[in-house]
Amino acid sequence: MRVLGVDPGLTRCGLGLVEGRHPRRLALVAVDVVRTQPDLDIGERLLRVERVVEEWLDEHAPDALALERVFSQHNVRTVMGTAQVSGVIVAAAARRGVPVALHTPSEVKAAVTGSGRADKQQVTAMVTRILSLPTKPRPADAADALALAICHLWRGPALARLEAAQAKAARRRAVHSAREHEAIGSGGVGRRWSG
Amino acid sequence: MRVLGVDPGLTRCGLGLVEGRHPRRLALVAVDVVRTQPDLDIGERLLRVERVVEEWLDEHAPDALALERVFSQHNVRTVMGTAQVSGVIVAAAARRGVPVALHTPSEVKAAVTGSGRADKQQVTAMVTRILSLPTKPRPADAADALALAICHLWRGPALARLEAAQAKAARRRAVHSAREHEAIGSGGVGRRWSG
Repeated sequence: MRVLGVDPGLTRCGLGLVEGRHPRRLALVAVDVVRTQPDLDIGERLLRVERVVEEWLDEHAPDALALERVFSQHNVRTVMGTAQVSGVIVAAAARRGVPVALHTPSEVKAAVTGSGRADKQQVTAMVTRILSLPTKPRPADAADALALAICHLWRGPALARLEAAQAKAARRRAVHSAREHEAIGSGGVGRRWSG
Repeated sequence: MRVLGVDPGLTRCGLGLVEGRHPRRLALVAVDVVRTQPDLDIGERLLRVERVVEEWLDEHAPDALALERVFSQHNVRTVMGTAQVSGVIVAAAARRGVPVALHTPSEVKAAVTGSGRADKQQVTAMVTRILSLPTKPRPADAADALALAICHLWRGPALARLEAAQAKAARRRAVHSAREHEAIGSGGVGRRWSG
């Protein structure tokens, strides 16, 4: 199984392809960081990242793409850019029928170091060890992308089942709340009569 | 000049095409709302919106695409989906060389109603009046998309100049802060010697 890990970002987008199947040894296939200049137009930056991700998808034909789940807790401007990049990446994978899995940073850290609060050095050290690399992958975005791929290869099957169940429950809640909303919305007329 | 206004969203994405040149009368060319079911995969939802936006870009060949600027103040889950949609739309426009302009909700409201704090009813009423429509555009996402296009046609040229200047200043600040960051980063060694 081949997994393309992507640490999404406009300025630096980490890409790491890992092959293997738990519990066998995992191997690095390719790793790189796409950079786009902040002085370029947002459209050009998104296209540049998209083009490279599409090349990787077409050349390496991964079985899955593991993407970092974006949160909006951080810097607003950065998060919006990162979410836009992630949208373009998800669409590129969907266009090719490659399943996309989202993993939170703490899930990834926990998967490779055993602690969800590990720092970047620890993650890089463990990625280097797990993939038996001769040197540490640089910059951190490259190591993070590889960590995402490792996380998915190790935790993917279990997480996918869990997430599918959670998403199903969330959709049921959404449908239920939409129905309730409709009921309340149209209830305005009803209330006149019940009073 | 033809402007495609887009009110981005995963569940409902409003599209409105308006033609005209200030101060001449503006005319509605087309308006629609793309809907995607919440029970679909995020990738499929993004592709569905992308496909429709691409059809509009190819069929109507607008001179510009006016998109609502996404903020992260609102509901986290909704905002991330909206930002992902907007990334896909910006990339689709960039692929065709169509310039993208971002307008905040209050800029749009101010452009069409005179007040940045106008409510949805007011915006819909003014869009209906400005475009001399026989009936109000429904749902609100359709009216919002048309309001975005009107805002761009009326305020676009001036705003574009202002935004270009602001973006340039922001990029300068970013480059400056990156340089400062590098200086501080490498300064760790320097400090040992200065002490």
